Amino acid sequence: MNFTNANILITGGAGFIGSALARRLAKQGAHVTIADSFVPEYGGNMANIEDILPAVHLSITDVRDQHSMNHLVQGKDFLFNLAGQTSHLDSMTAPFTDLEINVRAQLSILEACRQFNPRIKIVFAGTRQVYGKPDYLPVDEKHPLRPVDVNGINKLAGEWYHLLYNNVHGIRATVLRLTNTYGPSMRIKDARQTFVGVWIRNLLTGQPLEVWGGEQLRDFTYVDDCVEAMLLAAASDAANGMALNLGGGDAVSLRQLATLLTELHGGGSYTIREFPAERKKIDIGDYYSSDTLLRSTLGWAPTVSLREGMQRTLDYFSSHLERYI
Amino acid sequence: MNFTNANILITGGAGFIGSALARRLAKQGAHVTIADSFVPEYGGNMANIEDILPAVHLSITDVRDQHSMNHLVQGKDFLFNLAGQTSHLDSMTAPFTDLEINVRAQLSILEACRQFNPRIKIVFAGTRQVYGKPDYLPVDEKHPLRPVDVNGINKLAGEWYHLLYNNVHGIRATVLRLTNTYGPSMRIKDARQTFVGVWIRNLLTGQPLEVWGGEQLRDFTYVDDCVEAMLLAAASDAANGMALNLGGGDAVSLRQLATLLTELHGGGSYTIREFPAERKKIDIGDYYSSDTLLRSTLGWAPTVSLREGMQRTLDYFSSHLERYI
Repeated sequence: MNFTNANILITGGAGFIGSALARRLAKQGAHVTIADSFVPEYGGNMANIEDILPAVHLSITDVRDQHSMNHLVQGKDFLFNLAGQTSHLDSMTAPFTDLEINVRAQLSILEACRQFNPRIKIVFAGTRQVYGKPDYLPVDEKHPLRPVDVNGINKLAGEWYHLLYNNVHGIRATVLRLTNTYGPSMRIKDARQTFVGVWIRNLLTGQPLEVWGGEQLRDFTYVDDCVEAMLLAAASDAANGMALNLGGGDAVSLRQLATLLTELHGGGSYTIREFPAERKKIDIGDYYSSDTLLRSTLGWAPTVSLREGMQRTLDYFSSHLERYI
Repeated sequence: MNFTNANILITGGAGFIGSALARRLAKQGAHVTIADSFVPEYGGNMANIEDILPAVHLSITDVRDQHSMNHLVQGKDFLFNLAGQTSHLDSMTAPFTDLEINVRAQLSILEACRQFNPRIKIVFAGTRQVYGKPDYLPVDEKHPLRPVDVNGINKLAGEWYHLLYNNVHGIRATVLRLTNTYGPSMRIKDARQTFVGVWIRNLLTGQPLEVWGGEQLRDFTYVDDCVEAMLLAAASDAANGMALNLGGGDAVSLRQLATLLTELHGGGSYTIREFPAERKKIDIGDYYSSDTLLRSTLGWAPTVSLREGMQRTLDYFSSHLERYI
């Protein structure tokens, strides 16, 4: 993979995964443009990109702004399309906002590519949420699609637009269905990206972790492994028109994860609580992905263990806490 | 099933299926409100409802108008939610229009029900288009969902919103995935509803039918059988939260159908042509549905044969042609 001098657009580029991707690409000598709206409820955070700002171009804009998207896609070799509304709960209370970002804006971006830059290659950040409550584990790509919240429905529509534009209009696109991605720069202010963020915040601010349920199994991907998968998807045409699970190796229970975090941190406690009613309605029980197809199609393999990744995450936030809470 | 004095809203109620439903319900003494936009490219046609106009209330409005929907759902026992953009080709050239009608407006309608009338029962007109190109035949509800055009993606999102609001918000909803429905009052001006419409127009105006391909198998539902399924779905709680195929019995090839039509009409001819390139891209080959689940869940069975149904259709348009072309 050589992205030297490649022209790259990253929507949501000041967010958690987008900024890690931007950093990696900028170091390789790529010409990186970040588009980010810095909507306070989402992932964009200036603290994520200040170190690379001299080396990247930043447009503060919103994927809902068709005009800026029309301009920004032009002349780019790759689009990493990561901007999205990620909160399941917010999607239920503000479904139209989720629709505008996760459905309409995706169609806008693809139309912009079709009209102004059909040779671009797109990597789209999808979600395991499209599978809903699993029929079997691990969940592979043949699992029925059965989203259980507005976010899941909308993300699936956005994903399908990408595959459709690949198949019908020849705009190459690969979808990665992310599971719980974690690492430095993640949103820890609240649970809008993942519950792990809140746990880390609580741990570092001396409050107990609140574990809902506790025995549910989940898989986790360290952000660098996620970035690697996105770069592999961009560099190869092997997965054009495909939606691939980006899984996370061994599943652990939430209780095990809480134990690991308190151990790594050398302190802290957790309390096990019943699910809040609102959350229970859209909970999916155990979930972990099969990443076999991603491994075989793109040669990807995760390299950072959960222990190592969580340690790095805690270390990062220990020294940057005030910019994230 | 007794709908006497029931308060009923039918979106798309001046369209092909909606008007047949309105007529049937009005005859039973239901209080029927029709909401229809009469957008010229869609199915609404005053000729479809003039005979029942004294007995029904007509609101000329658009499902995209949230305010009118907020009002119209109030006090209703049943909502037959049939308004939609149905043209596959139009969805590819005007994807945002399709999105507004088939996605956003559906969410608006459901939000209106959640806020103003959560006890309503909804029957939603879905489409077999959500399955895309079949892996096997007949296509049952376990078949993978893989829409191949913008319309299919958007209709699927609209369908899922209905199931989600059933599951999470308790607003009872059943989805019927329609295949080629045909009968009196269908749109014959062009192929926006189904290709059968254009064939009938050509036959009755003395032009040859244009058959693309010819050997593809399709199933067909006569409109009265479709209406019966919708009434059964409304009257029962057995299919709440379910999406059921509304299939059409025996599949026939397009060539066979063209032969049948010319035979019933006692004249006319057809020419077999290659698929136009634009159409070929989104064609799905053979398709026919399994309706086993609908039969077992709601006790539905079709009663009108293809021959009988096509005869009635030709008879209707023979005497009403000028209002439809």
